[in-house]
Amino acid sequence: MSDTSSSTQTSTRIEKDSLGDVPVPADHLWGAQTERSRQNFRIGIEKMPPSLIEAFAILKLCAARANRELGVLKPELADAIERAAEEVIGGKWPDEFPLSVWQTGSGTQTNMNLNEVIANRAIQLLGGEVGSKKPVHPNDHVNASQSSNDSFPTAMHIAATRAIQQKLLPALELLQQTFARKVEAFSDIVKVGRTHLQDAVPLTLGQEFSGYMTQVADAQSRLQQAMLRAMPVAQGGTAVGTGLNSPDGFAAAFARALAGYTGLPFEPAPNRYALQAAHDALADLSGALNTTASSFLKIAKDFMLLGSGPRAGFAELILPANEPGSSIMPGKVNPTQAEALAMVCCRVIGNHTTVTFANGLGTLELNAYKPVIIYSLLQSVTLLADAAASFAEHMVEGVEPDRARIQELLERSLMTVTALNPHIGYDKAAEIAKLAVKKNLSLREAAIASGHVTEEQFAQWIDFKGMTKEV
Amino acid sequence: MSDTSSSTQTSTRIEKDSLGDVPVPADHLWGAQTERSRQNFRIGIEKMPPSLIEAFAILKLCAARANRELGVLKPELADAIERAAEEVIGGKWPDEFPLSVWQTGSGTQTNMNLNEVIANRAIQLLGGEVGSKKPVHPNDHVNASQSSNDSFPTAMHIAATRAIQQKLLPALELLQQTFARKVEAFSDIVKVGRTHLQDAVPLTLGQEFSGYMTQVADAQSRLQQAMLRAMPVAQGGTAVGTGLNSPDGFAAAFARALAGYTGLPFEPAPNRYALQAAHDALADLSGALNTTASSFLKIAKDFMLLGSGPRAGFAELILPANEPGSSIMPGKVNPTQAEALAMVCCRVIGNHTTVTFANGLGTLELNAYKPVIIYSLLQSVTLLADAAASFAEHMVEGVEPDRARIQELLERSLMTVTALNPHIGYDKAAEIAKLAVKKNLSLREAAIASGHVTEEQFAQWIDFKGMTKEV
Amino acid sequence: MSDTSSSTQTSTRIEKDSLGDVPVPADHLWGAQTERSRQNFRIGIEKMPPSLIEAFAILKLCAARANRELGVLKPELADAIERAAEEVIGGKWPDEFPLSVWQTGSGTQTNMNLNEVIANRAIQLLGGEVGSKKPVHPNDHVNASQSSNDSFPTAMHIAATRAIQQKLLPALELLQQTFARKVEAFSDIVKVGRTHLQDAVPLTLGQEFSGYMTQVADAQSRLQQAMLRAMPVAQGGTAVGTGLNSPDGFAAAFARALAGYTGLPFEPAPNRYALQAAHDALADLSGALNTTASSFLKIAKDFMLLGSGPRAGFAELILPANEPGSSIMPGKVNPTQAEALAMVCCRVIGNHTTVTFANGLGTLELNAYKPVIIYSLLQSVTLLADAAASFAEHMVEGVEPDRARIQELLERSLMTVTALNPHIGYDKAAEIAKLAVKKNLSLREAAIASGHVTEEQFAQWIDFKGMTKEV
Amino acid sequence: MSDTSSSTQTSTRIEKDSLGDVPVPADHLWGAQTERSRQNFRIGIEKMPPSLIEAFAILKLCAARANRELGVLKPELADAIERAAEEVIGGKWPDEFPLSVWQTGSGTQTNMNLNEVIANRAIQLLGGEVGSKKPVHPNDHVNASQSSNDSFPTAMHIAATRAIQQKLLPALELLQQTFARKVEAFSDIVKVGRTHLQDAVPLTLGQEFSGYMTQVADAQSRLQQAMLRAMPVAQGGTAVGTGLNSPDGFAAAFARALAGYTGLPFEPAPNRYALQAAHDALADLSGALNTTASSFLKIAKDFMLLGSGPRAGFAELILPANEPGSSIMPGKVNPTQAEALAMVCCRVIGNHTTVTFANGLGTLELNAYKPVIIYSLLQSVTLLADAAASFAEHMVEGVEPDRARIQELLERSLMTVTALNPHIGYDKAAEIAKLAVKKNLSLREAAIASGHVTEEQFAQWIDFKGMTKEV
Repeated sequence: MSDTSSSTQTSTRIEKDSLGDVPVPADHLWGAQTERSRQNFRIGIEKMPPSLIEAFAILKLCAARANRELGVLKPELADAIERAAEEVIGGKWPDEFPLSVWQTGSGTQTNMNLNEVIANRAIQLLGGEVGSKKPVHPNDHVNASQSSNDSFPTAMHIAATRAIQQKLLPALELLQQTFARKVEAFSDIVKVGRTHLQDAVPLTLGQEFSGYMTQVADAQSRLQQAMLRAMPVAQGGTAVGTGLNSPDGFAAAFARALAGYTGLPFEPAPNRYALQAAHDALADLSGALNTTASSFLKIAKDFMLLGSGPRAGFAELILPANEPGSSIMPGKVNPTQAEALAMVCCRVIGNHTTVTFANGLGTLELNAYKPVIIYSLLQSVTLLADAAASFAEHMVEGVEPDRARIQELLERSLMTVTALNPHIGYDKAAEIAKLAVKKNLSLREAAIASGHVTEEQFAQWIDFKGMTKEV
Repeated sequence: MSDTSSSTQTSTRIEKDSLGDVPVPADHLWGAQTERSRQNFRIGIEKMPPSLIEAFAILKLCAARANRELGVLKPELADAIERAAEEVIGGKWPDEFPLSVWQTGSGTQTNMNLNEVIANRAIQLLGGEVGSKKPVHPNDHVNASQSSNDSFPTAMHIAATRAIQQKLLPALELLQQTFARKVEAFSDIVKVGRTHLQDAVPLTLGQEFSGYMTQVADAQSRLQQAMLRAMPVAQGGTAVGTGLNSPDGFAAAFARALAGYTGLPFEPAPNRYALQAAHDALADLSGALNTTASSFLKIAKDFMLLGSGPRAGFAELILPANEPGSSIMPGKVNPTQAEALAMVCCRVIGNHTTVTFANGLGTLELNAYKPVIIYSLLQSVTLLADAAASFAEHMVEGVEPDRARIQELLERSLMTVTALNPHIGYDKAAEIAKLAVKKNLSLREAAIASGHVTEEQFAQWIDFKGMTKEV
Repeated sequence: MSDTSSSTQTSTRIEKDSLGDVPVPADHLWGAQTERSRQNFRIGIEKMPPSLIEAFAILKLCAARANRELGVLKPELADAIERAAEEVIGGKWPDEFPLSVWQTGSGTQTNMNLNEVIANRAIQLLGGEVGSKKPVHPNDHVNASQSSNDSFPTAMHIAATRAIQQKLLPALELLQQTFARKVEAFSDIVKVGRTHLQDAVPLTLGQEFSGYMTQVADAQSRLQQAMLRAMPVAQGGTAVGTGLNSPDGFAAAFARALAGYTGLPFEPAPNRYALQAAHDALADLSGALNTTASSFLKIAKDFMLLGSGPRAGFAELILPANEPGSSIMPGKVNPTQAEALAMVCCRVIGNHTTVTFANGLGTLELNAYKPVIIYSLLQSVTLLADAAASFAEHMVEGVEPDRARIQELLERSLMTVTALNPHIGYDKAAEIAKLAVKKNLSLREAAIASGHVTEEQFAQWIDFKGMTKEV
Repeated sequence: MSDTSSSTQTSTRIEKDSLGDVPVPADHLWGAQTERSRQNFRIGIEKMPPSLIEAFAILKLCAARANRELGVLKPELADAIERAAEEVIGGKWPDEFPLSVWQTGSGTQTNMNLNEVIANRAIQLLGGEVGSKKPVHPNDHVNASQSSNDSFPTAMHIAATRAIQQKLLPALELLQQTFARKVEAFSDIVKVGRTHLQDAVPLTLGQEFSGYMTQVADAQSRLQQAMLRAMPVAQGGTAVGTGLNSPDGFAAAFARALAGYTGLPFEPAPNRYALQAAHDALADLSGALNTTASSFLKIAKDFMLLGSGPRAGFAELILPANEPGSSIMPGKVNPTQAEALAMVCCRVIGNHTTVTFANGLGTLELNAYKPVIIYSLLQSVTLLADAAASFAEHMVEGVEPDRARIQELLERSLMTVTALNPHIGYDKAAEIAKLAVKKNLSLREAAIASGHVTEEQFAQWIDFKGMTKEV
């Protein structure tokens, strides 16, 4: 089991919770419940992601604003809580959130971690004694009008949509625009098309790349729609969705504060039972990431194929040589960026399996698989964003066509015979193609030898560039 | 290996394709290529789904219209093709489409199956000789302006979206409205909430069911959005997306005909390379089905829980007794509809894994996993539709609350202590709850014994119905 | 919803179960409970697989033997039951098992279907009145000493292991031996190796194929081990595993009868609680199928790559031309058997996701996802078996190397430079390789131009065949 | 993108590789290729797992031994390499392995990271200049007789099997034994069984727990078998499996050294092509982990159910109260260890999807998805090991039966009616059960009221403890 606490802690203070006293490290701001979780869940090395902590601190800040507005919190307490939350958002307390992903399924312990740290920090700011719960109580003040059961899912929505907005969509835009430049640059390069990996009729390299560009663009719009479906948040539902102990108007005030702070159109969910007991909107977002991963897998594999060689492969693309490729084969250059991207895709697809299952496993008023859902989802977002940007920068940007090779393959191909169909019919065209294969002829030679086509007709009908004209 | 041809075929006729002569059963309309596939792919028992065949026949009909409009087909040939296609759509030729799902990954053999059957049937209608390819040729006329590589994906889009439109969305609507009636009927029944399967604060049974209703409603709108993203079709791209051998205007004319015939707003895809080489829009649809499955899994499991008993479970719901539950335990009634639904969800989730992988595995100008994608997707649609309708009819409609049991559990629960927080604080409330557990007291007894609350205060603050008022 | 009963049934008889009277079709042998299920579960088109029905009939036969041996059944009743069961095993009553996979999660309804059909058939054999339950009662006699909860899982084990034994292992053996012949035949063909799809050092085509052969052989031994882990069966546990209402010695007598009948070493499970409440041994079998599918996916894709071309691909293998490949591109031949196999792999992998989820979802004394588990598992077995055999027969058997092409690529490759490492070191070897790329030289030219190697040294050190000698 | 190099590096030295000069941080031991990878792959936060680095260092040590034995390395160089490798194994250089999981799919960069660090450290030990490659060259000496393509998979096998041996199997043994103690302690507690979550016939709590114990024991033996199948290693195959540049006898000498060092029976693979181009043995191990996860999911969910309550659930088990359960509901205790375990299961199942797909995606002589496979596999091993131990310690060990509650539910249950079947038949027994439900009678009352059973018979036939006697 991983040891998270084996260090010799020089001093502790006593914090209390409803189960009793707990010694906690004196130099940390967390309290009893965080400490209990830290001791009881020594599982793996995965900590709650910083972007979730940040989202949760934003939530605490906005909750304090709403509580002040509704008279639940006195202004001076609300102020202190907001200041403490701002510090967390700003990254000032990275070492105060030590909890594992593998904890209670409601994320209550991380909610309490936030409550405890913000309460103790607010106490410090107000000149009180850390651990005294005065004048700022983690439950009664920082958590006022909230439950873990509405806040944790709200923090999940905030973290996921912000990560998509701030990291993934810009990376996709970069990749899409990088492809767009290549579509333009490669628009006049006619090449052999391949279906079933078998030679097929021609298209331009720009057309081929336009498919990739379109897949990325579709991913962007799909993610944007999915994000919008995650704007309704559960906050205000408290323990089971009814909103017990939350004052009238809290959900609306909170959502206003949140939308204001984040610039995203968050709104109170019309039905909170569904959002606390299940995470369909997040499973749906994960689905959009999963589709994106399957798109990227195809693109990555195509780059491996088109760049295969240099002498015994397709070799139509010259891939950037970013590093030596082999510890034993000198001079080898490998499609490493495509490989990293493809591995990321495998991971994202596996994460989606995790999220799907976890989403289906909730019971009655609570889905108790929240941490694994948000951990997996945020990993997918980060990996896709980073890998897309890396692929854009280190692969697509630097890729070059080998025009001579492309032309050579095009001329050797027999599938341009397809252009004869409208003139001589499918059956005779097939006869020509088979003759060429059998006697190892060029298409022209076979066509003329077949007697179905004259030289003039061949020259007129077999027009590589013309075949790529979109109709 | 499954034997698809072991029957003693009394007579055959000779059909030809570009590889040579093939004897085909004389009493069938299919031709050489269908027969080759039938012989070469004796894998499993799964045939191409009838709804795909129907969609493909719609496609052939609309292609004939577009070809006539553009002068590619003479009116009399187009007429005959359309009539033959109409017959297929109408279900007149169910035994003429014998091919396995497990064939070529482009679905070419099924495209040819359609071409051959429609051509031969059109020949019959025109008084010609079946197998003569005159006056209607399967490739040159029925397949005119098309390739398998643009038609098969187009047929996939038609089949998937029509199945969702005609089967799944109505079933979801039925389920959603059945829930809606229960939400109304159960709106005054206050019950114990449960989070982590532990007793929590109250809500009404109507509120609990409103969560289910919302999940279904969200599934409906999610699917509708995903369907719209599948309206652009590849038709017109022919072999690799450029549209070689397809006349100018074909894509537009075809899409108009298709939209007219189906009533769905199909349109020509702005980029066909992406739609032939990958099936992101369908992977995305599968994702929406996957999310729906995870929602339904939760709902099904909740019904099992709430109906557990009758004596040693939660027993809040009385489930309809549709059949005896046990071959050995007399009088047992089981939540069988919930179980069937939950099994369907497992299947749909597995299908999504299949579709995701298959979508990522395309190469260059073609995704060659089309049949397994559409087979899995259509199975998911059908299963979710049928199971949702069955669950609505045989489970939700007949479910009854056991009001006495619900009231008994509510009164025994301790978690209504939460309503004391705003009055006496979290820590004292926790003290009361623990006293009740320890001494096996009711909450009222413990509250008063604790000294933190008077009898009058208790009566005023602990108001079950009031606790369920949404704020 | 699919209509399974819309036909106009001309006549019915009344059967009874513990819920009351049920009219059932007079011309069928099933009874009240089968009929109820048929009416209540109109979901999808998937019926309980015939191989499960067969396994279940074997179980009923063996149970009758054990019951007779232990004095639970009178010999004349046991005889009649056994004769009826034999008829079902022999395939005499294919139309008597109409139930959907999507029924109760315990499979009770299919157990009752077996009980009812066998009872009624035994009644017929004894000259009684169908539906009278006399002298053979479906529960009291055919189901004697059993519950659905121990029989259905036992039938699952029987069906799954027999399908593997009878269908999958022979198909794998065929494929393995087909590969073995090619390993032998191709042992002298030296070719360029490829790692990362980039040219690498040489190996023989026989060595390459030996990897495939080994993967298949490993799959065989993995499946055999997994099969053995499925030999302990739950029979004898009845409703919850204790064996209530099953006589002492039943489990042992049954397992003896089963082992005798099937020739497989079935045995009574030491712990039946685990086998009724979960299906780990079957999830494990599904895992072995899943691994096999991932192996086959790799092999199938390699055939697509090696056969890519004919003019613009790797083109090292000439794949059998089983059928025309394109409806628009004349003369095209595609790797269709590899595609069918790859699609099967996607399906098997998705089935494994289904089985995994379903296995984890059991509760307390019962896993109630049995039908979806066995349906998915049997589909995987059948598809892998059929596809492996088809791939062996229609692809591997007929594949031919293009020796000239293979030699040409080998000579063009630069990666044989690796053989210089031991002589001149990695860094100088890399210099030579890069020089060859830069100036478009052959390796020999570059090596000599570099000054690091003499012509004699080159001739001695660069020995293609020698490089493939295994050390 | 995550910044791994934003720190202001005060000084660098120049290292070289075959692509040119690279400035690397002067205070680190890694060289040019590590640095290139560090710059080029800024994807995510996941580093190559320490247990893989350790395994790789073991490999380098054993390779040095084999190289010395075969005369490839001079003793003083081999010594220095072994000493440096020992230091890495001992954890002395944790900051020298900075590379991302998301790098080249062959793991070459991590192989080079090991080669560079060990070479430079060996140079230090021999008094040379770091970065000079003298007297120890990363490729020519540390990597002697090896390629990334045989070493990385070998390191994967070492890391995976050691983690299972050292972490997972002991944790499973702990859990199994903890269950065993409970089986013993709970052997006399008769309780209501539940199938379909519906009341069923009785069993003892010890029997119920014996099912869990058996599932864990089965997982142990399944994993041990799978481990043995991973003992053949690819080392000796070098670039493509032939063993080019590896001396005769290297594979055997290496495997002997490895078996000696680790105590695990590693051996040279009879066929290395299969092991470098695919990772079936690891996919199979992942399958065994996946099955374990599905088993644990069931167990975790059962604990949630049996501990549900305390007043409105099953409440048969009193779960350890490790921490306060709710930030808003005072006194609430939740099954948090079961939740953590269940979340881990979801993660492991998702990881298996990743591994399966990644294993299927290799091409020709190399699977280039190695890092994601080993990362996911090791995460699964660690999570299952830690979570199993935590669940044993914090949940199973402390769980207590609520005997009064268990007895109360048992007596209320009606399903003990099943014991009447052998006496009065299934149909009459069902009649009694339904009477009890309808009139809200106890089973005894209903039985006698039915007239089918006398009081004496009831007392004799309905024997709770007797019903749990295994037959």
